[in-house]
This record gives sequence, structure tokens and C-alpha cells, in this order.
Amino acid sequence: MDRELDRLVPRETDPPATIHRAMRYSLFAGGKRIRPILCLEAARAVSGEADGVITAACALELIHTYSLIHDDLPALDNDDYRRGKPTCHKVFGEAMAILAGDALLTLAFQVLSSMNRHYVDRQVRMIAELAVAAGTQGGMIGGQVADLEGEGQPPTPELLESIHRAKTGAILRASVRLGAIYAGADAHQIHRLSSYGEHCGLAFQIVDDILDVEQSSEELGKTAGKDARQQKITFPAVYGLAESKRMAEQQRLMAHEALEPFGERAQRLRDLADMIVKRSH
Amino acid sequence: MDRELDRLVPRETDPPATIHRAMRYSLFAGGKRIRPILCLEAARAVSGEADGVITAACALELIHTYSLIHDDLPALDNDDYRRGKPTCHKVFGEAMAILAGDALLTLAFQVLSSMNRHYVDRQVRMIAELAVAAGTQGGMIGGQVADLEGEGQPPTPELLESIHRAKTGAILRASVRLGAIYAGADAHQIHRLSSYGEHCGLAFQIVDDILDVEQSSEELGKTAGKDARQQKITFPAVYGLAESKRMAEQQRLMAHEALEPFGERAQRLRDLADMIVKRSH
Repeated sequence: MDRELDRLVPRETDPPATIHRAMRYSLFAGGKRIRPILCLEAARAVSGEADGVITAACALELIHTYSLIHDDLPALDNDDYRRGKPTCHKVFGEAMAILAGDALLTLAFQVLSSMNRHYVDRQVRMIAELAVAAGTQGGMIGGQVADLEGEGQPPTPELLESIHRAKTGAILRASVRLGAIYAGADAHQIHRLSSYGEHCGLAFQIVDDILDVEQSSEELGKTAGKDARQQKITFPAVYGLAESKRMAEQQRLMAHEALEPFGERAQRLRDLADMIVKRSH
Repeated sequence: MDRELDRLVPRETDPPATIHRAMRYSLFAGGKRIRPILCLEAARAVSGEADGVITAACALELIHTYSLIHDDLPALDNDDYRRGKPTCHKVFGEAMAILAGDALLTLAFQVLSSMNRHYVDRQVRMIAELAVAAGTQGGMIGGQVADLEGEGQPPTPELLESIHRAKTGAILRASVRLGAIYAGADAHQIHRLSSYGEHCGLAFQIVDDILDVEQSSEELGKTAGKDARQQKITFPAVYGLAESKRMAEQQRLMAHEALEPFGERAQRLRDLADMIVKRSH
């Protein structure tokens, strides 16, 4: 994965060098690559192989990295650390961090539109899926806005779920769908894999919220306890810690159930769902 | 054009409403719509009609508007006024301006990938063209970075041209190319229209630099004289005002020359080149 990302992103020496350094700094800062793995493994679940889809998988990591860089900006979450390292704007300044985020977002669509052109119809569908999942209506940016506007509001289960379905859920779901579309999945397969992606997404966010309460900043590699201080709407805030843990486990089981028709080919997707719930950072 | 843009962008009341208000605020702030007109008229020059290409034309205005919102941010050009109105971040705050820019960029690709699917191969080419033109390597973001890094550097003709070819030229050129590709232009037609787009782009930037020196803020609708204060590399700074005006006129003539094979069908493109050079704001 990292080799393919390295190939797709301009070199640190390519002019204008500063922005390529900033893009690479955040892209190779130790991300877990969950979205590209979801994409690859969804393709494998459908067709038994994941060759060729790796370029699309990388586009998902580019989108994810752009969103982290912009989220960390002083005007947004104002975070100084991410994955144990200073955030992009702390190292390269705010102007370069804004532009590096813009560039990664743009590059994601460049990469998707420049893949091998055997199935242009699937390619266009993948681009449309990613754009919607990254956008304002039920997508990532929409969730980010709802999250910002939700700070200090009464934490209801409905608001909580709608924020997270959009903010993290939409791209995780799209990761699976892009892989499935690439591999030529039929409507039923796409439906099951989308359902898997939604349950994984919700599990991921519940665990993220739990870790923010339970772990130290050192263990997380980013500032812990920020959610409570910023009066963010979180699962522990709405349901309490014990119930949140039960909910994460329930989502994990539902993710497994959605994979039932795929048999052995979906084993790594099952492992990934387990890993998402059992992770410690 | 504005009716189509209105159709493509979520309503002010669609949740999350704030970001849709911010996107629309900047999108309907009195832009000249030069890029979409270039796209439409390039299609007309090739095929005699411009139906259907309007959606792609709008994508160009979405990209342009995102770039203005981000350029105006305090961390970048720090502009309070644009087209005579307070800039997006002055009205909606920095966080919302960053996200509104991200959302317009994302929506541009959504719009391009969701057009009618008669020619998916052309559609994918158009998406790839736009992504490259908006990107870091010879594209808009690359030009923006070079521009930021060029402040205070010795103003050479080479640096000046390379900045503007990327910063404004790439998207203007892509506007023409997208229209041409949509209309099924052959390689020779695309070459001539690209050349027209390049000359228009350079003319546009030279005139922009001249206006920044000669006009008042009131006439421009934005802060005048900023280039000199920020020690930007401009055409008047490198060549002087008189020579800059001669160069703009030369670019206009070369733009006309590139259109020679298209005859009457390219009349509006000729008028547009004239308008770009003769505008006063």
C-alpha cells in the first residue's frame, strides 16, 4: 500500500517541493490504512482477488489524509498532535496545510480518473460514489459541519448517529463499495458489503469515542479527553461507557452477519471488523 | 448558467444549512463566469452547439469559487473583500470557509461524474483533465504555492510566467479543453483550442495585474494595490505598465489566431478574448 501511495504522490523534490513535502509528511505519518484495506478486501470478497484495485484504495487514503489535515487546523479542531507527531500546520504553517489538504483531495480524483481504463463505466461510478461520500449531504463534510454545530447542544441519540454516519461512516462505507464496484459486484453483493461497511463505521466511531475517554494522549498519539472539553456529542456521553462497549460489540457481530454470503473470501474483512473493535489506539 | 448552478448546489435550507449558505454566498457573489463560458463556447466551436456541456461548465465555476474562498483566508491572502462583498470567512467564519471550499471542490467532481453517461470515456478524460489542472504539478495549487513562495524573490520573467501558467492559466486552459473533449474534438482541434486558452489565460493575468495597479478598490470590488504591498511578482513589476499593456494585446491577437480554423463558430470565443483584455474590473 505504501509503495503504491509513494508512486502516486509527487516526490519531495518535485517543484513546488514544499507542498509535496507537506502532503507526504501527513500521508506517511503512520496511518492504519483502514480505508484502503476495506476497499481491497471488499474486491477480494467479490472476485477472489484484489489486483488492480489498489490505485482506487489509495484514493481513499488521500481523501482521509486531507480530512485529517483540515480537521486539525486552528480554525477547526486546533490539534497540535496527530499519531504522536506535530500536525501538518504545526510543521509547514497554516497556508501550506490548507493547500496540502486541497491537493490531496484533488489528487484522489486524479488518481481515480487515471486508473487503467478497462471499465470506464465502473470508474465513473466509483468517482461519483467517493464524491458523494466526501460531500455535504450525508457525507464527510456534512458530518464535520454537524459535529461543529453540535458542540454544546443536547446530546440525543439521533443527532449522535446522524453526525457519525456522515463524518466517518460515509467514507468507510464508500471504501467497501468502491472495491465492490471495481470487482463487478451485483446489487445484492453491494448491498451486503455496504451494510458491513456501515456497521464497521459505527463500531469504529464508538471505539474512537471510548478511547478518547479511557486512554492517555501518549497511548493515542493525539490529545486525549478533547471530546469532553469541547462538549462534543459522543457515544459515552449519550449512553455511558459500559453501554457504548456493548454497542461496539453488537456492531461487530452485525458486520460479521452481513458477510455471511461471501464465505471464506471475506475472512480478512471479518478480521478487520474484529481489529477495529479491539484496537487500543 | 446561474440556473444550472442553482440546480446543482444543495439548497440553503438543506441540512447542514450553514455550509450550503456559505457555498452559495460565494458562488452567487457576482462572478464573471469566464471559465464556464470558455467551456460552453469551446464545445460550440467544435460541434456548433453547447447543449449538455453546461453541467461540466458549472464544475469549472465550482472549482474557481473554492479557490477564491481558500485564497482569501487569513492564512493565505487575508482578503476582507471580494467582488465588493465581505469574503466568505468574514461572513461565516474561518472553519466554515475552509469546509465550504472543500465542499465546492468535492462537488465539482461529483457533478462531472454524475452527468449524463452517453460518453463515459470522455467523462473520465474530463475529470482527469480538471484534476490535473487544479493540482500541484503545473496546476492551480502548484501556482498558488509558487506564488506564496515567490513573495519577496527577485522578479524574473521565467518565474512570473511559470507562476501564472499554473495559478490561473491551467484552469482557463482546462475550461476550453473540457468543452472540446465533451464535443468530441480531434487532437488538432484540442491543440488549437488549448493554445487559445493559454493566450487568454496569460492575457487575463496581465490585465489583472495592471488593474491592481491602476484601479481603486471600489472599482475592483477587492483591495487594490495589494500585489505591490505583498511584494508579489507581477507583470507591471517585471515589465512596466506600458510593456504589460502591449503584451496583453499581443496575447489577444495570438488567441484570435489560434481560432482561425473554427471560422464563424468561434466568434464568441473571439469576443471573450477581447472582453478579457478590455475589462475594467
